[in-house]
Amino acid sequence: MGFEDNIRKIDPYIPGEQPKKKVIKLNTNECPYPPSPEVIRALREADWERLRLYPEPACDTLVDALADHYGLRREQVFAGVGSDDVLSMCFLTFFAGDRPILFPEITYSFYDVWAKVYGIPFETIELNEDLTLDPSGFKKPNGGVVIANPNAPTGVAESREVIEGIIEYNKDSVVIVDEAYIDFGGESVLPLIDRYPNLIVTRTMSKSRALAGMRIGYCFGDERLIKYLNDVKYSVNSYTMNMPALIAGAAAIRDTEYFRQTIEKIKKTREWTKERLREMGFTFNDSRTNFIFAKVPKGCNAKEIFEGLRSMGIYVRYFDKPKINDRMRISVGTDDEMNFLIGALKKLTRT
Amino acid sequence: MGFEDNIRKIDPYIPGEQPKKKVIKLNTNECPYPPSPEVIRALREADWERLRLYPEPACDTLVDALADHYGLRREQVFAGVGSDDVLSMCFLTFFAGDRPILFPEITYSFYDVWAKVYGIPFETIELNEDLTLDPSGFKKPNGGVVIANPNAPTGVAESREVIEGIIEYNKDSVVIVDEAYIDFGGESVLPLIDRYPNLIVTRTMSKSRALAGMRIGYCFGDERLIKYLNDVKYSVNSYTMNMPALIAGAAAIRDTEYFRQTIEKIKKTREWTKERLREMGFTFNDSRTNFIFAKVPKGCNAKEIFEGLRSMGIYVRYFDKPKINDRMRISVGTDDEMNFLIGALKKLTRT
Repeated sequence: MGFEDNIRKIDPYIPGEQPKKKVIKLNTNECPYPPSPEVIRALREADWERLRLYPEPACDTLVDALADHYGLRREQVFAGVGSDDVLSMCFLTFFAGDRPILFPEITYSFYDVWAKVYGIPFETIELNEDLTLDPSGFKKPNGGVVIANPNAPTGVAESREVIEGIIEYNKDSVVIVDEAYIDFGGESVLPLIDRYPNLIVTRTMSKSRALAGMRIGYCFGDERLIKYLNDVKYSVNSYTMNMPALIAGAAAIRDTEYFRQTIEKIKKTREWTKERLREMGFTFNDSRTNFIFAKVPKGCNAKEIFEGLRSMGIYVRYFDKPKINDRMRISVGTDDEMNFLIGALKKLTRT
Repeated sequence: MGFEDNIRKIDPYIPGEQPKKKVIKLNTNECPYPPSPEVIRALREADWERLRLYPEPACDTLVDALADHYGLRREQVFAGVGSDDVLSMCFLTFFAGDRPILFPEITYSFYDVWAKVYGIPFETIELNEDLTLDPSGFKKPNGGVVIANPNAPTGVAESREVIEGIIEYNKDSVVIVDEAYIDFGGESVLPLIDRYPNLIVTRTMSKSRALAGMRIGYCFGDERLIKYLNDVKYSVNSYTMNMPALIAGAAAIRDTEYFRQTIEKIKKTREWTKERLREMGFTFNDSRTNFIFAKVPKGCNAKEIFEGLRSMGIYVRYFDKPKINDRMRISVGTDDEMNFLIGALKKLTRT
């Protein structure tokens, strides 16, 4: 067919599996605890008859709540359908030049997918042998920079100083710092937002706020950048976030106490899991996220263990890629889930 | 700043105003009646604790319900965040060639915005003097075709035969028929879907299903086209539709009886309103949509009447564009709302 020539053909990003049967799901870094009771109350009390009307195009309810919570002006805040939507819009808006954008060779696997779909030239920067960032790689001419901090799937958090050095050097590029996992540890560069007009910080409610099913992401930046971003957003879809997402997001951001408790529980379970994994011979960087990126013990095969876990009803994530194919990414679940995982790993690694 | 050079600068689509105060809102073609009671029940009974998990990436709950309702295979169905998201993904996927795409000069004002944001060359085809479509304009080499039927803001519906002629001629292009308003009248080309591998038919739940606030759109097409579309969707955002949208959409499509009643009420009110407008000297094409695109009586000024209505708390839509700046687009509201509108128009036109 002639029309095939006009079609954009893409190798899509493959999301982690969403199994329909009951399994222990440690493969997509969801929160093992439910959303805040305030979120559930807000949804139970919602006036669903209002669904006949379009939602707020500027997402005011949520943007105002975010600005208030983070002590920013609403003009510094942008919200979207998960941080994937926010990041995708950022790529489309800020990376429209000819020079390649830079991001680490091992990082969130969507970055190169967005670059390809929007025709953005890119170059990946090697990590150090221990999977930490080599800042010097980001100090050369470029059309933009994207850094996940803490990084995924490595779990490594870089200091604010290291990230600031990259932002500082790249005054002529927009630097996106993807802080999807920052609530679980690490130093945010959000406090630098007023100092660097080239900085965008992205966040999500999918992990630390237990709202993956609601698709809520947001970012912060200089008013000018946020305005450009909104112009592009309004040119793609005027009304991206639906009414329930706006209601739930605003309720979630206000419940600081529940949020704090959830984070503490996850961190505690993470540290306990790290101990057990270490005892069995797994090695890993000091994860500051809600997952652990663990190298299997000497003599074990990561893919086999991944498949062994799967057959026992435990889903983790395995990336069949150079440099990381000896590892598994394990989301931090409840204490019971991690206990069950450790038992299964003991069998599979015969330790 | 150097980074300004890399920024995509866009004149965004300006959506109809979403006023916060209480007004008679006839400016964005929403449904004047609430969503189906089945939708409200499904949302009231939803298990919001599940929001901690990602939603179905392939939107199965909704896609299955749609395939079932329309008697299609699920591989022929794609769903997204309103038909704006669906159309935007279609533009990005199907119009990646060098030849200009074609759409009418007066039509949904998002088409040229998407073309611009994705760098797609385009050419607009003049309508006939009476705002009907001139099919001959679409019979020349092109990189794709987009036709809204019924058209917006004109409200004009073309016959299936006319649209089929355009699809038939353009075997080497993807032809998108945007049927956002088809439920209010006109002949759908959906029955042709198995015959033309180059045909995409888009729909929305924002108008006829009273779910504008939930952002639900979908399209139908050949399995190959739907696969390409999904590949691009997964490259932009793996999880676009959130859990409440999937639940509400599936419940809405199943309640055929409520849908039928709502459509009947709106059509009846539309015909009554047409009568009254005609009596006052307004002229318009025979609207087959949930709005009337009315030319003001001789000696009246459309912009003045638009502003007069606004000051009386009645919002309609006015397009300050050549050929249509003597008209207003009036959404069909409840009987009471239309009665109030007619009273106001009598004052403003002194009839």
